[in-house]
Amino acid sequence: MSQNIYDHPDFFAGYSQLPRQVHGLAGAPEWPALRSMFPNMHGKRVVDLGCGFGWASRWLRENGARSALGIDLSENMISRARELTSDAAIAYRTADLESLDLSEADFDFAFSSLTFHYIRDFDRLVSMIHRALTPESSFVFSIEHPIFMAAVHPHWIEDEDGRKTWPVNSYAIEGERRTDWFAKGVVKYHRRMGTTLNALVRAGFTIEKVEEFAPSAEQIKQMPALEEELERPMMLLISSKR
Amino acid sequence: MSQNIYDHPDFFAGYSQLPRQVHGLAGAPEWPALRSMFPNMHGKRVVDLGCGFGWASRWLRENGARSALGIDLSENMISRARELTSDAAIAYRTADLESLDLSEADFDFAFSSLTFHYIRDFDRLVSMIHRALTPESSFVFSIEHPIFMAAVHPHWIEDEDGRKTWPVNSYAIEGERRTDWFAKGVVKYHRRMGTTLNALVRAGFTIEKVEEFAPSAEQIKQMPALEEELERPMMLLISSKR
Repeated sequence: MSQNIYDHPDFFAGYSQLPRQVHGLAGAPEWPALRSMFPNMHGKRVVDLGCGFGWASRWLRENGARSALGIDLSENMISRARELTSDAAIAYRTADLESLDLSEADFDFAFSSLTFHYIRDFDRLVSMIHRALTPESSFVFSIEHPIFMAAVHPHWIEDEDGRKTWPVNSYAIEGERRTDWFAKGVVKYHRRMGTTLNALVRAGFTIEKVEEFAPSAEQIKQMPALEEELERPMMLLISSKR
Repeated sequence: MSQNIYDHPDFFAGYSQLPRQVHGLAGAPEWPALRSMFPNMHGKRVVDLGCGFGWASRWLRENGARSALGIDLSENMISRARELTSDAAIAYRTADLESLDLSEADFDFAFSSLTFHYIRDFDRLVSMIHRALTPESSFVFSIEHPIFMAAVHPHWIEDEDGRKTWPVNSYAIEGERRTDWFAKGVVKYHRRMGTTLNALVRAGFTIEKVEEFAPSAEQIKQMPALEEELERPMMLLISSKR
């Protein structure tokens, strides 16, 4: 059973104020890079794993998907997601991705944004997603980058020139990482980049593209705070094919 | 034209004393992981790009390869490699990988150890290797890990608990890195992990395995100095298929 931190009142209150929750996809600087990995959505049955408020589920439907199923552990998130649409071809349900079992070949596209680093058993999940997809389907997802997650104390430091620098240690020591983010003791699972990619290959997926999100010059001009993302990647975006 | 640092007298003198040069493959802790990525060598025509003293070229021949061609920029390395074998099915030649052009479909396995981070135009090189291989051939190589290479000042620091920690900055800023290693101003080229993987996919290779080398418990017992490699990866090992 996953930690249901999104239904913790402090966490939910803080999380709901994040730009990407208030402004939806426009508040997520990695969205253009992620979206560019999508296949043509026309007629596709899509599943959005860790859908949150359902921003991506709705976008996928508006961009041609035949149906969208959004799944999230949090009752709070799913309630809000349901309030935000009246589209009968979008369904939302609560479920724990650690034990979720989707029906075989029920989907033509699987998507997940910043969710899988909360999952302990990534191998099981990826095999289940492989079974749930039809042949030739795409599977696109983002996670926190392992460079961002690895260290015991993950926070900015300075190098000898005063340059913003990110510490890496414990990189090969995979498993639980506890951080304080809107609430104390949020549990995440660190996996090396190779571990994530090899799990996909073992499950039968072909790696199509690996993006370590960095803002464009235009994005930095619009939002100077993004410039620090050039120093170390916070998000890893992966596109694969069944 | 690549910087020919290996023919610089100070560099060559220092480099020749590295355990992996004195002891060959037994002095390279990543060798077991790399070797485990190899296909059955029986009857294969192999090319070893950046062969150095030819340790891997000879191993591949001894393990079933029909022929081995070792290529290196350094006259010093190639001379020494030639002295170390009398096998007529092993050939060594000097060439710059930035401009090398191998004949089409002349090889059934391509290998490279810790060389491609010296190469500026990785895209050109990978496309050339793809053309030089027969269909279904494997291409296995190691490079310095981008986590190890990215920072302006890449050296151990300590975190607030005194834990060995590696600094990362400039990760998204790809290109030249100059370091002092046996000689001043050794030029290497930093590429993000995604950039390396995407170049392979674009050239037509399928990613089979990505290993960020970390020593086993047994290796650490034999050589305690290896333990720090758990904190951050120094080497990236990639196996792909044409």
